[in-house]
Amino acid sequence: MPASVNRERLLKTIDDYARIGATDSGGVTRLALSEDDGRARERFAGDVTGAGLELSADDFGNMVARREGSEVLAPIQIGSHLDTVRRGGRFDGALGVLGGLEVIRAFNDAGITTRHPVDLINWTNEEGVRFEPAMMGSGVACGVFDREWACDRTDLDGVRLGDELRRIGFQGERNNRPPTGAAYLELHIEQGPVLDDADIPVGIVEGIVGITWINVRILGQADHAGPSPMALRRDALAAAAEIILVVEHLASESGPPVVGTVGRFDLEPNIINTIPSQVEMSVDFRHRDAEGLKRLVDRLIESADEIETRRGVDIQLERFWTSPPTAFDARIVDAVALAADAVGAQSRRLWSGAGHDAKYAAEMTPTGMIFVRSRGGLSHCEQEFSESDDIVAGVATLLQTVFALDASLDSIVT
Amino acid sequence: MPASVNRERLLKTIDDYARIGATDSGGVTRLALSEDDGRARERFAGDVTGAGLELSADDFGNMVARREGSEVLAPIQIGSHLDTVRRGGRFDGALGVLGGLEVIRAFNDAGITTRHPVDLINWTNEEGVRFEPAMMGSGVACGVFDREWACDRTDLDGVRLGDELRRIGFQGERNNRPPTGAAYLELHIEQGPVLDDADIPVGIVEGIVGITWINVRILGQADHAGPSPMALRRDALAAAAEIILVVEHLASESGPPVVGTVGRFDLEPNIINTIPSQVEMSVDFRHRDAEGLKRLVDRLIESADEIETRRGVDIQLERFWTSPPTAFDARIVDAVALAADAVGAQSRRLWSGAGHDAKYAAEMTPTGMIFVRSRGGLSHCEQEFSESDDIVAGVATLLQTVFALDASLDSIVT
Repeated sequence: MPASVNRERLLKTIDDYARIGATDSGGVTRLALSEDDGRARERFAGDVTGAGLELSADDFGNMVARREGSEVLAPIQIGSHLDTVRRGGRFDGALGVLGGLEVIRAFNDAGITTRHPVDLINWTNEEGVRFEPAMMGSGVACGVFDREWACDRTDLDGVRLGDELRRIGFQGERNNRPPTGAAYLELHIEQGPVLDDADIPVGIVEGIVGITWINVRILGQADHAGPSPMALRRDALAAAAEIILVVEHLASESGPPVVGTVGRFDLEPNIINTIPSQVEMSVDFRHRDAEGLKRLVDRLIESADEIETRRGVDIQLERFWTSPPTAFDARIVDAVALAADAVGAQSRRLWSGAGHDAKYAAEMTPTGMIFVRSRGGLSHCEQEFSESDDIVAGVATLLQTVFALDASLDSIVT
Repeated sequence: MPASVNRERLLKTIDDYARIGATDSGGVTRLALSEDDGRARERFAGDVTGAGLELSADDFGNMVARREGSEVLAPIQIGSHLDTVRRGGRFDGALGVLGGLEVIRAFNDAGITTRHPVDLINWTNEEGVRFEPAMMGSGVACGVFDREWACDRTDLDGVRLGDELRRIGFQGERNNRPPTGAAYLELHIEQGPVLDDADIPVGIVEGIVGITWINVRILGQADHAGPSPMALRRDALAAAAEIILVVEHLASESGPPVVGTVGRFDLEPNIINTIPSQVEMSVDFRHRDAEGLKRLVDRLIESADEIETRRGVDIQLERFWTSPPTAFDARIVDAVALAADAVGAQSRRLWSGAGHDAKYAAEMTPTGMIFVRSRGGLSHCEQEFSESDDIVAGVATLLQTVFALDASLDSIVT
């Protein structure tokens, strides 16, 4: 391959962006559509313009910078996000955008003109911290979210997203929305411990797991801890303990990438010498296929029924939200794997347990993702860290993937 | 036995007192040293005076009404409390005081003069709801609590107990404190489901279980619920679930009256899609002997050590409070059992899982208790209820016990 990653330039660019919204402990706070997000967007506008790209913003503030190709083809898209959580890390999101910028610069350095246009996208409000929900810009672009509804979301101070978008100057035109591409690629830190545990720098992402959220409410009987014999109790907390372990067991026996988590937990009356009368808790199940998710829920219901009968408590389960799984396009996934091999990056295939803009991009465009190892799996915190060698390996894989797909894809003429 | 319970008078007296601090749902709110406690005390003063007793108050407001005996002997004491919890029931406490009043009246009706004086005691602040801790009046009288310390306790409004005692007019003399008696008897509703479950009206209480409280803190690792494989987690909540079930198992396999309860429970960060990093929870163990309590704690520590190692979490246990068990005097317990038989009340022996003034009285005086069945085991709520037949059976047992002990006891001359 005639183009190659400029390691120093790449790392310096990441450093430069990490200063925008830097925290005193080495992290970054750059909430969507904040002043600091605006500054990062201005810097990005300057960088892509300097790299010779044509920049536009769509009606939800998604920024699209195009490097023209030699043929009239749908673009190969590279996207991620420059916003962060509060006291987040320097790589979550920025790596994908700035890795894409390095791909563009590497093509420029090598004097390569691709057949396809290459579009570099900075999606608006991926994190969903200031304005819920997450992955909003990609969701609006692919039609999952209505733009007016999304613009009406407010932060804790009651400020409208749409007003902030206009204030920081990135309200563009509807016809600038990213089109259906020939391929969509997203480079991102893993945000999990799988690669670190396996001592492998690069992950070939096969898809994004489906998520279902269940609310579990257990009604028992409050009683004095002293005079109530064990055999006559209807202890909501003891029933909840069994359900917590059932959730763990169902997920464990299914094997990766299936996970099950009880994260939210409240009990009543929460008094040291009173048997708990009520527990309300959440269950988060993730699975690579929708049928598998349903089986997990069905088996949880079966166990809850048995516990309910045996313990004389009342258990109500409500499956209140589901995000269906997204399997990435096999041609793109294979291209990423070949690219990693071609650049000598050790890699393994895995599923993403977290959501990414690639999930919504995949609604329109054949999609794949590349993960870079996160130390200890930590993310959404200031301790988030990836080694420079791994960063370079991930960007090199991205560069090689774009190059290879550009040569091989029979894409739709725009 | 020449004396007998006047059923109508007894039930009407209980009704009369239940009107003082009556709630709109059939319960009673008569917090210690409140206006309503003051009114109930005035009514009690009138009733015991009307029954020919001599009334005094001690320096902590404990009210002692004496019916003189024919010999110079230590008194047979009957005691309980007229204060209640917020929105409590009409029997918890009042039954013991008013049942004692009925015993006095029954002796009066029958023209019986006992050998021993009979002292009827209304202890100050048994519930410990407005001013913590519980069983304060009996605790001061037997020397467990220092009077000055107890008078300095404040309620949520910062009002001092000692000031309230003076305000409602029941601050008396130190030398009026209840002396060591020949016997102390307390009639009380069970506040638990054992008698109701066994369909038996009267309980012969063998003692009050010891209680130990343990704080358990579990430190795991917070992580995103999605990208963290089950095998790499250090989930504080899943570890807590195992400990909850260990507590339940240890108590269940020990058999009654042993109980184990996790009542207080908090977790961090309590977010639906984040693996819990920290749990803090309480364990309440109760056992009839101190060695048994220690064995329960030791076995919990063993289990926690195993869970800690297997799950890679950190578990800290702190045994921060213990109330030692109190076994009642076998002669008094046997006398209560014989009395129940004599009056034809079906009874069974059991241990009290909750504390009562009898616990502190037993520090000074050979003590026994009589329980009356509580419907569904409910107490400290407006639904607390005992059948009139059971009430009468309990008071008849008390009357017969006093009568029999008066005849049989070789008590200390005062």
